[in-house]
Amino acid sequence: LTRTRIEVLAVGDELLTGATSDTNSTFIARELFALGHSLARVTVVGDAPGPLGEAFAEALSRSRILVVTGGLGPTVDDRTKEVIAAYFGDPLVLDPDVLADIERRFSVRGIAMPDTNRKQAYVPRSARRIPNPVGSAPGVHWEREGNDVFLLPGIPAEMQAMMRATVLPAVGRILPAPGLQVATFRTCGVAESVLAQRLESVMARFEDVTWAFYPGAGGVDVRVRRAGGTDIRWIELCDGIRFGIGQHLYSEVPEEPLAEVVRRLLVERGLMLAVAESCTGGLVGARITEVPGSSAVFTGGFVTYANQAKTDWIGVPEDVLKNHGAVSAPVAAAMARGARERAGADIAVSVTGIAGPTGGTAEKPVGLVYIGLAAAGGCWTRRLQLTPNRDLNRTISSQLAIDLVRRFLLGLAVGDPS
Amino acid sequence: LTRTRIEVLAVGDELLTGATSDTNSTFIARELFALGHSLARVTVVGDAPGPLGEAFAEALSRSRILVVTGGLGPTVDDRTKEVIAAYFGDPLVLDPDVLADIERRFSVRGIAMPDTNRKQAYVPRSARRIPNPVGSAPGVHWEREGNDVFLLPGIPAEMQAMMRATVLPAVGRILPAPGLQVATFRTCGVAESVLAQRLESVMARFEDVTWAFYPGAGGVDVRVRRAGGTDIRWIELCDGIRFGIGQHLYSEVPEEPLAEVVRRLLVERGLMLAVAESCTGGLVGARITEVPGSSAVFTGGFVTYANQAKTDWIGVPEDVLKNHGAVSAPVAAAMARGARERAGADIAVSVTGIAGPTGGTAEKPVGLVYIGLAAAGGCWTRRLQLTPNRDLNRTISSQLAIDLVRRFLLGLAVGDPS
Repeated sequence: LTRTRIEVLAVGDELLTGATSDTNSTFIARELFALGHSLARVTVVGDAPGPLGEAFAEALSRSRILVVTGGLGPTVDDRTKEVIAAYFGDPLVLDPDVLADIERRFSVRGIAMPDTNRKQAYVPRSARRIPNPVGSAPGVHWEREGNDVFLLPGIPAEMQAMMRATVLPAVGRILPAPGLQVATFRTCGVAESVLAQRLESVMARFEDVTWAFYPGAGGVDVRVRRAGGTDIRWIELCDGIRFGIGQHLYSEVPEEPLAEVVRRLLVERGLMLAVAESCTGGLVGARITEVPGSSAVFTGGFVTYANQAKTDWIGVPEDVLKNHGAVSAPVAAAMARGARERAGADIAVSVTGIAGPTGGTAEKPVGLVYIGLAAAGGCWTRRLQLTPNRDLNRTISSQLAIDLVRRFLLGLAVGDPS
Repeated sequence: LTRTRIEVLAVGDELLTGATSDTNSTFIARELFALGHSLARVTVVGDAPGPLGEAFAEALSRSRILVVTGGLGPTVDDRTKEVIAAYFGDPLVLDPDVLADIERRFSVRGIAMPDTNRKQAYVPRSARRIPNPVGSAPGVHWEREGNDVFLLPGIPAEMQAMMRATVLPAVGRILPAPGLQVATFRTCGVAESVLAQRLESVMARFEDVTWAFYPGAGGVDVRVRRAGGTDIRWIELCDGIRFGIGQHLYSEVPEEPLAEVVRRLLVERGLMLAVAESCTGGLVGARITEVPGSSAVFTGGFVTYANQAKTDWIGVPEDVLKNHGAVSAPVAAAMARGARERAGADIAVSVTGIAGPTGGTAEKPVGLVYIGLAAAGGCWTRRLQLTPNRDLNRTISSQLAIDLVRRFLLGLAVGDPS
């Protein structure tokens, strides 16, 4: 049996006080996933040598490849290299080349190298050095008793550069990956549990597939992975998933934002978009402009938070506000129509709701949101009863408003126009 | 010897494929710090029962308190509750109350509960339920053989609410912290390294204090912790920190958003605010309205993304746009003035910039942002050269725009009016 397990050991007190999140492991995990590998475990420990040494020994005993990040800095609390070298009985020796390189890095900035940085020029005698193209501390690669241990700095830019230049190619040589297929399906407007039900039959038909559901505030991602090539079974699998998800599927590009999909659709059709927002306070516009190039399709928006602003800026009739209330389908429709006209846009989308935590009534509970869309052909509205959590409510509302534009542009069902 | 070790076990394939970063542990670490505790280790594992069970048993054997996050969802790959219950030999039984609650959550949204969600209504017979005020899955609290195990959902909003309402108070009872003082100082507009320099002398004077710097996109939080009461030394310490931070200090309430500070200042002065945004696309308005009660002080905003919108909606003169370009101090000033007038507000703040990744020139590089403020007494602008990272640039720009309102309302230095 060949051991193939890969683990990460992330070292640093700052990770255990909550000063920093361990995003290095996220980066490493993504890069490994794309190579066809999975991380088996991530362990986060502080800088103290005792607990660090214990966690290292445990992780080493479980894994074939161990990537250690953090603790290569110049200060006394950075001791990862010393702890691992001591564990392997590998003496640290001063490397004059590394020392010269560190001194040079300081001198180009017109600073003398502080004495503390000398520490970074000591390298384990029987290990390989990993060049650091970005910073002063080199990494270390030990090959010991069937293990490969890679030690990298904790600073993300340095870690990422060294991962890409040295560690990932080495992983590819040590553990050649099987031919793997990976696909991602991004969805919006459907609960994870409903999605799981819709995919039940395809899940039952493909037992050789690894499934993952990634719920986020913007929707649920479905990811599948399967050994083998793009054979007929793989194509059937992907088609089965597309059929199961239906109109909720907005992208098959990992991490592609919904706003990017909508931007592309607007560019293809040569249309300009405007928005009118109440409870989301600008979040719809902020999300639309998250993607570069949005200026080609987005005129702008009206954050009509006060009723007076709804009337004065985009012409929502006072009697509609009075008769139906600000959170109503007629007001959502009037906001979309008014923003479209005022902005001279082809399409406008609107949001009005009770984001919470207060402001609800029996008839209109906290979490109630109306979204509207106006276009040349008329106006459409949707009533949504969402979470009473203010942040989540606003995030979901803004995503669903943008998704309404996607559905409209694709000619999907959005109901009858008013 | 009383065991006092606290660990976190974060469960989820999405953490090991890199789909999500483990920010839950970051949150837990910060909350524990405020209680006077430190996290000893964080372990991240996937959903597969075998490795999950092993990691759980190991973490349990090392710790007094173990917080497990993730794997309580409705789908088949969520198995954390099942794995731990099996480890403890604790049968899962259907809890009719929980089932009714989940069904109710769906019915208010007009949806029938999918069958898969039934799974979430099964609770371990000999454990306590942890109420979930935000979502459908309740948490679990086991007390076994000198260990307390808390199982929480992986969705951050749910995890955080349950941590605060149930787990942290329980931790306080299980491991009473020594008489500790904790203080938080929230800052905006100053780099972490500069802040550390400004606090150097006070750090040198108080050796019995634990310091933590938490850099975030909205600014850096400084947190201090010290054994003892609110004695004269503690008061001296806090005063020394306030003096060192100076005008950059906006709140001493942990997690209080800058928008809440500004909301309160506006309420106290009886003033209404409006915004005009270009590169931030609505983010300033979105942040202002993040806090409940913002409707009392916020009229609304104009997201004038296109130049035409700047001219048509808030009267930015065409020749100013032509002569100075959209990203310039005169345009920022005209946007603020125009929004103030159009909205009938007392104060208006504006943002215009080149958020990137493209659109820069030698004279106006990517990352250049102007913010403006208009009030009865005139108009102020600031030039900011920020990061070329689009997301970060927009987040920092919107925070600094809101901070300009704070500084103005407090009579702090904002330069001469134009």
